[in-house]
Amino acid sequence: MIIDHLDEPLPGSSLLPTPSGVAYTDPEIFSREQSEIFEKLWNCVMRADSLSSAGEWKTVTIGREEIIVVRSRKKGIRAYFNVCAHRGMRVCTSGEGKNKTLQCGYHAWTYALEGDLAAAPNLTSMPDVDRQDYGLKPVHVREWLGYVWVCLAEEPPNFDEAVLGEVRTRFGEVESIDNYGIENLKLGESKTYDVAANWKLIIENFMECYHCATIHPELTEVIPEFADGLASQRMNGEVHGSEFGEEIKGFTVDGSASGFEELPRIAPDQDRKYYAITVKPQVFINTVPDHVIIHRMFPVSESRTTVVCDWLFLPEVIERDLPIEKSVELFHRVNQQDFEACEQTQPSMSSKAYSGGGALVPSEHHISEFHAWWSSQVAVSEHQTKVTV
Amino acid sequence: MIIDHLDEPLPGSSLLPTPSGVAYTDPEIFSREQSEIFEKLWNCVMRADSLSSAGEWKTVTIGREEIIVVRSRKKGIRAYFNVCAHRGMRVCTSGEGKNKTLQCGYHAWTYALEGDLAAAPNLTSMPDVDRQDYGLKPVHVREWLGYVWVCLAEEPPNFDEAVLGEVRTRFGEVESIDNYGIENLKLGESKTYDVAANWKLIIENFMECYHCATIHPELTEVIPEFADGLASQRMNGEVHGSEFGEEIKGFTVDGSASGFEELPRIAPDQDRKYYAITVKPQVFINTVPDHVIIHRMFPVSESRTTVVCDWLFLPEVIERDLPIEKSVELFHRVNQQDFEACEQTQPSMSSKAYSGGGALVPSEHHISEFHAWWSSQVAVSEHQTKVTV
Amino acid sequence: MIIDHLDEPLPGSSLLPTPSGVAYTDPEIFSREQSEIFEKLWNCVMRADSLSSAGEWKTVTIGREEIIVVRSRKKGIRAYFNVCAHRGMRVCTSGEGKNKTLQCGYHAWTYALEGDLAAAPNLTSMPDVDRQDYGLKPVHVREWLGYVWVCLAEEPPNFDEAVLGEVRTRFGEVESIDNYGIENLKLGESKTYDVAANWKLIIENFMECYHCATIHPELTEVIPEFADGLASQRMNGEVHGSEFGEEIKGFTVDGSASGFEELPRIAPDQDRKYYAITVKPQVFINTVPDHVIIHRMFPVSESRTTVVCDWLFLPEVIERDLPIEKSVELFHRVNQQDFEACEQTQPSMSSKAYSGGGALVPSEHHISEFHAWWSSQVAVSEHQTKVTV
Repeated sequence: MIIDHLDEPLPGSSLLPTPSGVAYTDPEIFSREQSEIFEKLWNCVMRADSLSSAGEWKTVTIGREEIIVVRSRKKGIRAYFNVCAHRGMRVCTSGEGKNKTLQCGYHAWTYALEGDLAAAPNLTSMPDVDRQDYGLKPVHVREWLGYVWVCLAEEPPNFDEAVLGEVRTRFGEVESIDNYGIENLKLGESKTYDVAANWKLIIENFMECYHCATIHPELTEVIPEFADGLASQRMNGEVHGSEFGEEIKGFTVDGSASGFEELPRIAPDQDRKYYAITVKPQVFINTVPDHVIIHRMFPVSESRTTVVCDWLFLPEVIERDLPIEKSVELFHRVNQQDFEACEQTQPSMSSKAYSGGGALVPSEHHISEFHAWWSSQVAVSEHQTKVTV
Repeated sequence: MIIDHLDEPLPGSSLLPTPSGVAYTDPEIFSREQSEIFEKLWNCVMRADSLSSAGEWKTVTIGREEIIVVRSRKKGIRAYFNVCAHRGMRVCTSGEGKNKTLQCGYHAWTYALEGDLAAAPNLTSMPDVDRQDYGLKPVHVREWLGYVWVCLAEEPPNFDEAVLGEVRTRFGEVESIDNYGIENLKLGESKTYDVAANWKLIIENFMECYHCATIHPELTEVIPEFADGLASQRMNGEVHGSEFGEEIKGFTVDGSASGFEELPRIAPDQDRKYYAITVKPQVFINTVPDHVIIHRMFPVSESRTTVVCDWLFLPEVIERDLPIEKSVELFHRVNQQDFEACEQTQPSMSSKAYSGGGALVPSEHHISEFHAWWSSQVAVSEHQTKVTV
Repeated sequence: MIIDHLDEPLPGSSLLPTPSGVAYTDPEIFSREQSEIFEKLWNCVMRADSLSSAGEWKTVTIGREEIIVVRSRKKGIRAYFNVCAHRGMRVCTSGEGKNKTLQCGYHAWTYALEGDLAAAPNLTSMPDVDRQDYGLKPVHVREWLGYVWVCLAEEPPNFDEAVLGEVRTRFGEVESIDNYGIENLKLGESKTYDVAANWKLIIENFMECYHCATIHPELTEVIPEFADGLASQRMNGEVHGSEFGEEIKGFTVDGSASGFEELPRIAPDQDRKYYAITVKPQVFINTVPDHVIIHRMFPVSESRTTVVCDWLFLPEVIERDLPIEKSVELFHRVNQQDFEACEQTQPSMSSKAYSGGGALVPSEHHISEFHAWWSSQVAVSEHQTKVTV
């Protein structure tokens, strides 16, 4: 069995078990995660303002599908499978562009920005071809926090429950995050990390701070309580923010002042504090008083994950070109430290010494909720006869 | 189901369906294609005159097998599996050479050019070892159009029906191609293309000209009717050649005169015309009045194919070193344009937006015959329970 | 069927069959070899004197597992799976080092050199965590011939029977090898070969000398009887050593004198002779009067094997820096020649021309004993329904 008593302590122990290593190494389980999680749930894919005018488009890979995200003329941002309805060629063959229509480069089938088939050679001699039936296959789209979110399922889960619900679980209400005005912030820096580890290891790493004292010297300097292993997650049913150290002036790599203003609407209990939220399956939101850091994950294989990290600032910080390097450097180091730990963990997942899984200490216990969620999503119990021999 | 009603229009439509994308992406289906198509049918492998004297040999990969093709002393060109009968080592360990016998480099088992075991250390003390039973395993060989054709099956299909039959289907009779005297032409240029696409996409591309207006500017300049999407294939039961434009002087990249004579025996209706024939599973023959272009395909994986393209000219063109660059450049550009389209189509084949296949317009309808042939070869209907979950 | 009548001559023939090519190419069979052979039997992994003081450790891959081998303070050399009991991270993340304890770099779980959990953050608040249950998972260790041998099985085979038994089968008694005093020799040179061939081809190559005349000119110059194809293995129930040629002064690449003394305790019938022993599954021992050559194999995949070859000399040879190049060069060439033959054999194993296997000549007949042993280890008969379609 892959997963057993995920949320019960080990007999006679304060420890909790983890899933078997096979959950992190089996290509069949990964394939199931792609179909049951990433191709079914809402994924955060790009800043909405990166598509500023009608006809601007970008492509992005979600699960195993390449998707076109485009700003249409009448209906805001739309998304489609990047597959021509005729013979299947990629309609957009580069990462981004701007066009009045989306035209396939093979036989010139041409689609309106709203997705319908607009023109094709000899189309007039095929009057029975319905322009919607032979349009681009659409993908569900929402905007939130200034990001485009897409869902590849025919019937997407309710966005309010599935995505905003994560914020409610963390903060008690969605308003707390509204204070940061993330939708109006501007991108200061974006870094992409190619991580040789299963995506679940990256989530689990983000959900606990038991490792902080060992691998994050800069972060624990800024937030001393992290040295005690307390994660900035919901604790004892209470909203908990992680407080800056007394001498700390800002959330920067050396604890000095950032040099720019706090976000104007944050509440008093959000000052001098770091908050973190995991929006399953692929987003981490990190807030500090004067900027916001957002991670998006894109699993590539059972042992490889692309992580994109954005640093967002007030528009005037970007417009006046204020120095953001010290702020960016702090979490960039945290990212590198975390991802290296994940990469050193991945190879052991296939060991028979890990075939029964490992253990979670009490301060990592909330990771068990993630495991239970994962287990319910992939319905491993039914699947397990296939993958455990 | 992978293939459904391949040769019937879609309900209420002038369009025809294509096979499901899985036919182009599944390694099991590809493996079945290797065993049921490439390792069972006749493959065109090399110019016969590239082995000019007894003992000259070359190796070639057909399906998943490496084959030695050698000019023997008494029996013309012969072919064998490149596997020593003793412990299996490659008998020929490079791509070509010339030897009096074929000797394995491991234990010196030595084979006559006609395949029998001729000598081996201590063979005299093993008088019961039959020299034919322990000879090289032979492969069937034919010569046609100046090429060596091989078939790996124990019982090869009738060459006249299987190969020449394709010419008859195209031209009504085989004589039309004889006019070009291809067996006496000489190789002027050969280019090898590594194409990141399934071999069937390359055949389908070759069988239609609906794409010509979009991707082949030079070719449609030379042959204006291609701009209307009419492929140079059999049409309405009639032999159809594609006529050069009025201002066109030759089948060259800029339509200027080639600078050399027409092939001496072509018929009046072969003048100023381009003809194309697909000899399944891996050959395209292209004829114009003063030269011939032949493509051979060698599938490598479900998403990779090697294509070798030969340009053949009258011996005096080669001997007098006349400039062939303008002639070669035209189809070299066509090849590059086609293969890029195939490469941009391959990735979408695994999309769920293509899981039901795409559509063929009326001018692509004869591709359905290829699909029906393919389906009968791989017997997908029996196989499909394995590959569609 | 994969294996049929392995130890019976072919009907009416002096030849013996080999296993089908699938035994050398199927990833499932390789996976079974890893679990049933390399992860169950004793493996020779490194010189014991390469861990000279307490706290020195090296990692090594056995089967599909990474193992830490460390010199402990109280209990000699110990070995463990390189997997932290907490969340699984590699405890040692480089190839070698020296530490007072083995500390995981993720959450600082810290293990004594004897394997017990010695410390962890907050461990005192988890008094129920047993320090042995959450220690490093141990691996069985033995020392012999100055090498560390490990076995990953819970219940290892009897070392005396499984390992020393190979020497007894070869020499009649273990004492013959004791004469060489291998445990006291010093490493003069070590070379690592990355061989693109299945490990069984390498063993089979080592077990016969029918190939020597063809590929080993230097070796057959030194040992002329090898040119007749007689392997230096047990023959006709007798211990057989391979005698140096009359003009030969030493076991060197040009047959000249080595320039150093013979090993002091060898017997008269060990002088001027080469002996070889295969210790299944991964060790070859080669002895000559003045040095010893030991090969260790580490299979990587069904078509790739790492071979490490050590040349061992008397301590004074190393200490006085006497020239060992001529001695090393002889077997280095033999290795290169052998591994190239194996690499040229591997690709044919997947040919249908080898699907029934090849043949062994009478002087290769003892390889059949290896095939029978292999067959019993992997229990192919039960497995074969899976891998032969």
